[in-house]
Order: sequence, then C-alpha cells, then structure tokens
Amino acid sequence: MLEYKLLKKSKKSNARRGEITTSHGKIQTPIFMPVGTAATVKTMLPRELEEIGSQIILSNTYHLYLRPGHELIKKAGGLHKFMNWEKPILTDSGGFQVFSLNNLNKISDEGVEFSSHIDGSKHFFSPEKSMEVQMALGSDIAMAFDECAPYGADYNYTISALERTSKWALKSKNYHNHEYQSLFGIVQGGMFKELRKRSAEEIIALDFPGYAIGGLSVGEPSEMMLELQEYTAPLLPDNKPRYVMGVGTPNYLIEGVRAGIDMFDCVLPTRLGRNGGVLSHNGYFSIRKAQYTDDFTPLDNECDCYTCKNFSRSYIRHLIKANEISGFRLITEHNLYFLLTLMKKIRNSIDNDDFEDFATRFLNKYYSESI
Amino acid sequence: MLEYKLLKKSKKSNARRGEITTSHGKIQTPIFMPVGTAATVKTMLPRELEEIGSQIILSNTYHLYLRPGHELIKKAGGLHKFMNWEKPILTDSGGFQVFSLNNLNKISDEGVEFSSHIDGSKHFFSPEKSMEVQMALGSDIAMAFDECAPYGADYNYTISALERTSKWALKSKNYHNHEYQSLFGIVQGGMFKELRKRSAEEIIALDFPGYAIGGLSVGEPSEMMLELQEYTAPLLPDNKPRYVMGVGTPNYLIEGVRAGIDMFDCVLPTRLGRNGGVLSHNGYFSIRKAQYTDDFTPLDNECDCYTCKNFSRSYIRHLIKANEISGFRLITEHNLYFLLTLMKKIRNSIDNDDFEDFATRFLNKYYSESI
Repeated sequence: MLEYKLLKKSKKSNARRGEITTSHGKIQTPIFMPVGTAATVKTMLPRELEEIGSQIILSNTYHLYLRPGHELIKKAGGLHKFMNWEKPILTDSGGFQVFSLNNLNKISDEGVEFSSHIDGSKHFFSPEKSMEVQMALGSDIAMAFDECAPYGADYNYTISALERTSKWALKSKNYHNHEYQSLFGIVQGGMFKELRKRSAEEIIALDFPGYAIGGLSVGEPSEMMLELQEYTAPLLPDNKPRYVMGVGTPNYLIEGVRAGIDMFDCVLPTRLGRNGGVLSHNGYFSIRKAQYTDDFTPLDNECDCYTCKNFSRSYIRHLIKANEISGFRLITEHNLYFLLTLMKKIRNSIDNDDFEDFATRFLNKYYSESI
Repeated sequence: MLEYKLLKKSKKSNARRGEITTSHGKIQTPIFMPVGTAATVKTMLPRELEEIGSQIILSNTYHLYLRPGHELIKKAGGLHKFMNWEKPILTDSGGFQVFSLNNLNKISDEGVEFSSHIDGSKHFFSPEKSMEVQMALGSDIAMAFDECAPYGADYNYTISALERTSKWALKSKNYHNHEYQSLFGIVQGGMFKELRKRSAEEIIALDFPGYAIGGLSVGEPSEMMLELQEYTAPLLPDNKPRYVMGVGTPNYLIEGVRAGIDMFDCVLPTRLGRNGGVLSHNGYFSIRKAQYTDDFTPLDNECDCYTCKNFSRSYIRHLIKANEISGFRLITEHNLYFLLTLMKKIRNSIDNDDFEDFATRFLNKYYSESI
C-alpha cells in the first residue's frame, strides 16, 4: 500500500509539500533518506536515527542479497525486524550496484551476470530476481530493476539501456506481488533530454505508484545534472511521489525541491562523516585542517544536534586524527541531522510560502561564508 | 580532594563496599572503570556511558600527551570539558605504556627516553613530567610514575624496578600540586611475594590517599596472578581505596573483590567488542562463529542492555562480518554494560551479605554452560 497526498504547491516554483503513507507510517515530503547499505546506516543505531528525525531510510538490495542474504533476512521476519527499524524502508533494485561495482560480465535482456565484490562468486540478477529479493526484505517501497547507463554513454547505448529499463520495468511489475510493498518505476535516458522524455513516457505508461529519476549524479557536470533534473521532474505525474536517486548535496536538494522532487537519498553525509568532512550552514569543510586544532567552537554554530551541543571542533578533530570511531559517529550524526533539518526547514518554508526566499538565504550563506 | 568511606566488610572474605568522593562526584565501590585511552571510550559517547552506569572512566596519560597534547587539553579547560564527561576520571601515569609500547631507549633514575609510537619522535618521561601532564589533564585521580617490570623479569631486575618505583613515587608526590586532583601510589614487585611486600611497605610509607597494585595481568599464569593479588591486597591500608590495574575478566574481578580490591580497569570489554568477542552470563563467545548465523536470540538472555533488548545474534554477526561500526558499537556497549552490571550485583551482594553465594552462582554459570 502507498498513498501520496499533495498538500501544497509553491507559487513561484515547482516545489511541493506532500505526505506519503506506507505500511510503516507516514512520511512528510520533501524528504532526505539516510542510506543504510548493509542493514545499518553506517555508525548509527536506530535510536539515534529516530532522534535526529529520520522518517525513512534506504537499504541496498545488492548488498543485502550478497550478505547476509535475503533468505536469512526473510527468516528473521524481514528487514525492519532484522535491523530493528520500525519506520519505512525503501530498497533500491540492485541495478545501480550491479552495473557500477562490477566489471560487467554478461548483460542480456534476461538480466545481468556479475561477480560478488566480496568473494568473486558468480551471480545473476534479473527483474524477477530483484523483485524476489526485495519482497523477501519486505521494504515499504521497492524499485523496479533498471539499467543505469554510465556517464559518457553514447546516444545509441543510452537508447538500448532505456529500452531494457522499460522492458525490465514491465517484468518487475508483472512479477511483483507483495501485500504491503509498493513498487516504483525508474526513468533513465542518460544525458539526453529527448531520451529522458521517452523513458518517462514509457515508464509512466506502466502506472507505478511512484517514480524515480535514475542515472543522475553519476559524474556529469553540475549544470547538466541540474538541467536534466529540472527538465525531467515535471514530466512525472503530479499525483505520485517523485524521487531523484543518489543526490544529497545541499544545493542539489534545494534545486531538486524547486524542480518538484519529493524524495532524495545519498551516502554523502555518512561517507563524509567517516573522513572528517563536515556539512554546515557555512559550507563544507574538513575537520582535519590544522586551523581547527584549538578551535573550541561547535562544528556548526547554527546546529542543535547532539554533536554541536556537546563537542568542539578541536575535540572532534583530535578523534578523527586518532582514527577514533567516536569521531566518525559525531560527524556522521551531525551531517545527517544537518540534511534532515534542512529538509524540515524546506518543508516549513513551502508551508509558509517562503521557499524561494529560504533557498536564496540558505544558499547565499552556504556558498559565501568561508570558514 | 578524595575521601574513602568503608561502608561494609564481607564476613566470609575480604570483599568490601565503599564510597569514594571526588571533585566530580561519588563512586560506589567495588567498581569497574571503562578505559578511554584517547579521551574517548572506543566507539562510545558520553550519553551512552552514563546510560550503562559508568561511574568513572580511565584515560591514558601517555596517549594524551602524544596526541592531542596535554597543553591543548588544558587550554580546552581540562579533560572533562574536552571530552564532555562530567563524572570522575582517573589517569594512569604513562609508565606502563612507556615501557610496553616502546623498544626502550634509555632508562635512568631521572626517567625514560622513548620514541612515539605515532611518529617516532623522541620524548622523555619522568615523575615530574607525568605529574605535569596529569595536572594539565585535570583528572580526579592521578597515578604516581612507576616502572612496571615485564613478566619474566628476574629477581634482581624486579628489585631495581621496585626501588626506582619507590623513588619515583616520592618524586611524584613532591612534585604533585593540584587543588582537586588526588595522587595514588603504585605497588610493584613483579611475581615475587617478598618484593610485593617490600614495595607495599615503601609506597604506603609515603602516605597516598589510595593505592594501586601494578604489574599484574602482564602475561603470567592465571593462578599466579590470583595468588599475588590475594597476597598483596591485604597489605594495603583498610581505610584507603585499593586498585588493581589492567584487570577485567569476570573471574579476575570477582576474585579481586574477594581479595579486598575496590577498583579495576581493563580494555578487554572494548577491545573484544571491536573483534566480535562477547562477554555473557554463559561465558565468553565469538559472534563470528557460523552457529550464530540464524540465531535470533539476544547476545545474552539475562542482559537488559540496549543491544540485548533490541538486536539478535544473527544481526550482530552480520554487522561484524561486514565490518560495520554499528556492530562494534553494539557489542562494546553490551560488554561494558555486562561488567558494570556485574560490579553492581557484586555491590548489592556485599550489601546483602550474599557475596560468596553470588560469586559461586555467577562463576558456575559463567564456566559451566557452553553456548
């Protein structure tokens, strides 16, 4: 089951407020989804995810299929129970990882043969297999199996990936059969507007309860990404949730909302966190820099997270330099809180007809103040 | 400032209940102290340490001196403020690390020249330097600088280390000058009872507010460790806290309490946690074993910690196999909770004149049930 309610549209842009109802509760959109690749959002435990306001998390079908295996998770009572997360979960299709984490072996209209990045063992993913795995995981939102053409793919290759994505979307839909799980379609089309349009038309024709834009933020220049996002989003139906996959920088989120996107996910805040990279109202910075050695102010003066209320840049820099897990934790929690709170402020600004002003103020500060 | 109040003595053994008052609050003894080597108990944050009932933590002078440096921590307002821990802290003297983490360069009655394990730079530690660093850190309890003879040291070497430890204890005491920090003496003497006795007499003569037994659990057989602990503890004054350094297995803790020890510390629960090693009422086990793959019971059925109330062996095994920080966190928190709760039960059993029965029941179960 999945319901989307369009609560409000911005007057000056395509930004919109919505509410998605899933089997595990409601989600206020636009929303950022923390990524829990291996049935855990790296360094975080569920109590903290709830505390910082996570409404839904994403988990990776490819990784869970390989380890610990979807059958084990099914035996555990599904992914929610296995990882003790009671709110909604979205699983991706595994397509992106199969194509990006492997030296491709064989691809056909039936599916993809690939080698495990863990032990090199051979596996075969197909639309049917992806559905089987996602149904075993029991996520609230599953994604149709797709082919994500790499950045730089030419027109002809992009067409073939698009056509295969459409065929696989139909196969996914026909095979999918789960009482509580909804299946979203994915629009591909690479860097070509006319192919984005064609893919959108073909996928929308299959009538999914929600749609994702895949294949963006795969290495293309920022302007190209933003232009394609802005072009593609309005092609998707107004009465269904729209999701851009793999996007999480503050400016992409704001531009995505402006284009009419409701859902985002990205490993950025968690991956940065483990490397000392900090997202803040004053822009991005690395806590490893010597200038923070004796800086006893918080990571972000405007932030109310546990990290910023209790610890200094100096202390966190020390932990990161000493390779202490506590340091990874403190920055990860801050980064996630920062993005989740940004989305909350965005939602409030749409509610208050103030989104454009909010976006301008936020981005001006984010880009202009150097720290 | 430091006060020790002896609350109750067991009738059947030397076990005792006490209360230590420090500048950062009271500690109920006997107590286990989690180790926060680099100004953080590995994987844990202060809110969780409080939640699981940590009354006092230990931090390492040697490590903090090298990184981030005691002057920086002093500038931050002291170690409590730097790491945001408001309860008592004990710092060791750095002696054990200087001797065990380095290929010794030069040792004299003045002190020890050593190379940093981080960057190889040369440093010199002396009783005066150890006091200077510990006073800058501002811990509640500091330790006199000592020489810990390695296991296997012969009688003559052990005597020279004992004599140096006594000289350094006096130098430490003479140099130490801190309004809120108390200085404990350390008894050495290696594996020789008569040298333990001599060291105890020399150190007690200096009249410290508390005494530690150092140089145990350094590689000697279990029986030898227990015998020396049992022999040495009663040599220490009844009206001061007694501390055995570097001890943390459940049986050592129980035998230590039985011998009249009040304080213990060890990296065991945190180090095990990062390797998948679990302490439980049914003994020690490694969660990596294949038998736990689809075991959906908690780590320890008798445990009330966050980990055991919310996650299965199967899930935690998956996290550890996938090298996920969340897995290290879950086991570390459980292991610490297990030892802290064991100490709490020990305190209750002394209060209720039931310590011997409790110890027998606990150890029988710990050793007899295999899981």
